[in-house]
Amino acid sequence: MQRNMKLSDARIQEISSAVDPSRLWHRHMDMSEIGARPDGGVNRQALSAPDAAARLALIHWSSERGYKCSSDAIGNVFVRREGRDPSLAPILAGSHLDTQPAGGRFDGAFGVLATLEALQALDTASVESLRPIELVSWTNEEGSRFSPGTMGSSLFAGTLRLEDVLDTRDSDGVVLADALRDVLGSIADVPRRPFRFPVAAYLEPHIEQGPVLEKSGSTIGIVTGIQGVRWFAVEVVGSEAHAGTTPTSSRQDALQVAVSIIHALNTSMVDQADVLRFTVGRVVVEPNSPNTIPGRAFFTIDLRHPDIEQLEISAKRAVTICRSLEGPCKVTVSETLSMPPIKFDDGLMNILGYVAKTLNLSQRHLTSGAFHDAKSLSGICPSAMLFIPCALGISHSPKESVTMEDVAAGARVLAPVLAELSLMDDEAMLATHAHVGRTQPEFQ
Amino acid sequence: MQRNMKLSDARIQEISSAVDPSRLWHRHMDMSEIGARPDGGVNRQALSAPDAAARLALIHWSSERGYKCSSDAIGNVFVRREGRDPSLAPILAGSHLDTQPAGGRFDGAFGVLATLEALQALDTASVESLRPIELVSWTNEEGSRFSPGTMGSSLFAGTLRLEDVLDTRDSDGVVLADALRDVLGSIADVPRRPFRFPVAAYLEPHIEQGPVLEKSGSTIGIVTGIQGVRWFAVEVVGSEAHAGTTPTSSRQDALQVAVSIIHALNTSMVDQADVLRFTVGRVVVEPNSPNTIPGRAFFTIDLRHPDIEQLEISAKRAVTICRSLEGPCKVTVSETLSMPPIKFDDGLMNILGYVAKTLNLSQRHLTSGAFHDAKSLSGICPSAMLFIPCALGISHSPKESVTMEDVAAGARVLAPVLAELSLMDDEAMLATHAHVGRTQPEFQ
Repeated sequence: MQRNMKLSDARIQEISSAVDPSRLWHRHMDMSEIGARPDGGVNRQALSAPDAAARLALIHWSSERGYKCSSDAIGNVFVRREGRDPSLAPILAGSHLDTQPAGGRFDGAFGVLATLEALQALDTASVESLRPIELVSWTNEEGSRFSPGTMGSSLFAGTLRLEDVLDTRDSDGVVLADALRDVLGSIADVPRRPFRFPVAAYLEPHIEQGPVLEKSGSTIGIVTGIQGVRWFAVEVVGSEAHAGTTPTSSRQDALQVAVSIIHALNTSMVDQADVLRFTVGRVVVEPNSPNTIPGRAFFTIDLRHPDIEQLEISAKRAVTICRSLEGPCKVTVSETLSMPPIKFDDGLMNILGYVAKTLNLSQRHLTSGAFHDAKSLSGICPSAMLFIPCALGISHSPKESVTMEDVAAGARVLAPVLAELSLMDDEAMLATHAHVGRTQPEFQ
Repeated sequence: MQRNMKLSDARIQEISSAVDPSRLWHRHMDMSEIGARPDGGVNRQALSAPDAAARLALIHWSSERGYKCSSDAIGNVFVRREGRDPSLAPILAGSHLDTQPAGGRFDGAFGVLATLEALQALDTASVESLRPIELVSWTNEEGSRFSPGTMGSSLFAGTLRLEDVLDTRDSDGVVLADALRDVLGSIADVPRRPFRFPVAAYLEPHIEQGPVLEKSGSTIGIVTGIQGVRWFAVEVVGSEAHAGTTPTSSRQDALQVAVSIIHALNTSMVDQADVLRFTVGRVVVEPNSPNTIPGRAFFTIDLRHPDIEQLEISAKRAVTICRSLEGPCKVTVSETLSMPPIKFDDGLMNILGYVAKTLNLSQRHLTSGAFHDAKSLSGICPSAMLFIPCALGISHSPKESVTMEDVAAGARVLAPVLAELSLMDDEAMLATHAHVGRTQPEFQ
């Protein structure tokens, strides 16, 4: 861990102490009233009325503190704490305020509200930043209403074009352009920014959405990257026949072939470190009648690994297993999705780790199994994520649960990290974060 | 094989030669016009208008030949060729004229039309029967419109009560009592018989509905019995979780547990003689989404064996396997159906075998994997079945296909067998068929 910090350990502790756990927790509770579900969960889908109301609440809380708010053509909201040199690219931090239809109170909201709390802590601790710090709330991370997810950050980073999403419809037939117009109308008094303005670094606090931190008793997760994903669709075609009259030797049982394949995959798709993720989530059998031998069986494979080579090896092995076990049936394998792994910035991870250690917070490195807006940002600036535990790894559910202590701990790490980064000039930034500007966006 | 026949080999050949293959085939083609589907199949479901029309056609063809027709309270149709002693219990033979909604031209119809042809052959060959021979066409064997199947023969044999089926509705909400009233109205001029009149023996010709005869190159199947069936429903309950964030060691993947069980069952539910039938026909996975670890998996087990002890051993083993492989999930096994095997009458099987041999027709013994009306009759009189091959074992499908030669061969065996049986008095009958009247019906 690096000891080349601009902030002293004492100063780190001072800034961290300025975080107000109660205020931060109550902001979560207030935010979860917007789109509240009777079961304690939140339904605040992208570009809905509650999602617009959430933007207004964020802008209201931020303006109260004197921060300048702005937005862009997709409704991403930025909240700026100014630095001594406003011409320098800002440090960006945040997450999203939209939720799944049956979502929880912390997925996304934690990253936005912890960043707001961190900005206030910097004020309380009288941190004089060199470069500006901006809080961001990205539009439509979830993608459950309008596909694709991480829409706002992808448009910002230039990997998606606005004209390609405007005609998207939700399941009720509402066109994204219309829903967006309403949302932008509600924040018409906020200045409009272009996509892809220069960013010095991006940090995203988030709940883990998995069980690793809770199981290992760690408070802070330093996220090393986002796993790569390969999806395959496997179709097994056999022959329907009468369950009572057809001897085993005459059968072309599509389900039994599918079961052999899935069983072999489950045995094979395992690594000792338990890093590879292998899931068969969807199975369809036809005609699916108890006394008819299945003539067709279909299943999906979801493979994830943070290392692109390991992912490739596993994917190739999976396809080989599918094809080698077709028995008396015909097996067809098609790849339906391929996303390479993302590696986060070592310099940012070092600073996160140093601050957590200085604060005596237990930490561990882990990779993210889910996607996040940091995936988009990592293509244009040094990026990293900080996780806090969530109960039983449950998210995308009203049952999602996080402790007030862990929420506070996340903000207590974030605030000094933002302060440290905001003191670095471009030279220092380049020295620590090797890949600044390494990737050009696909679309300008 | 017995050589205690009343008919000489020459007489067997003479009676057999009186079968008219062309007339028999054309009756099949005429019958398949009633309820014909555009794809070449037949839709003549129980107690429908086409099913009523099929009864009228049978009664018309039979009355033309001078046979007396009768019916009963469920619309079973009987066609009587009189014997010298009308007081003796008749030999009964036949099958059914109803079909599956997407049925073929031979399943059921072959047994009825081959018996009608046999009666005519006996006339042509001037056979003077001692006891009457009656052709029967049972109502609702298929059970696809009104449940349960083998309804007419079960009511006749007394294992089902009329009052328990009258309120049954089809999927359009039509009540069985109303559909039955229309059908009985259309044959109001035919005398009404009681259920459960005395029967000396029952023979049912049928297409195999399986691949055994075709594969072994045999023309005549001597059916030794109907397999026993045990059905189980297996539910595996695990825990839904995110496919990307949940390590293998933390998963309670209901599908992987189900797959392990099905794979182990498939390895275990095998016998060298290939007699045991094991099928998993239905699988339901929840939530069935590619990137969610399944929280619930459900599947069915269909086990069949002609030997009740072997069936019991296999069923116990299957349940043990299900329960022993629950891993991190909870497995619940429930039995949903249990029907003991039926053994057909050795005396009747011997006569069938002798006649087939005398006619130089290749034969083999086999068990029936599917249910038939002979299951009901076997409880009240000596019963047996005769199978002919069907292409690729396909039935319950418009693709069902049988050759004109095999149809004729079935009738050519049946006619001398009916003649032989019709010459036996009660003493001879009792001597050959040990279990006459061995079983009392459940309901009188």
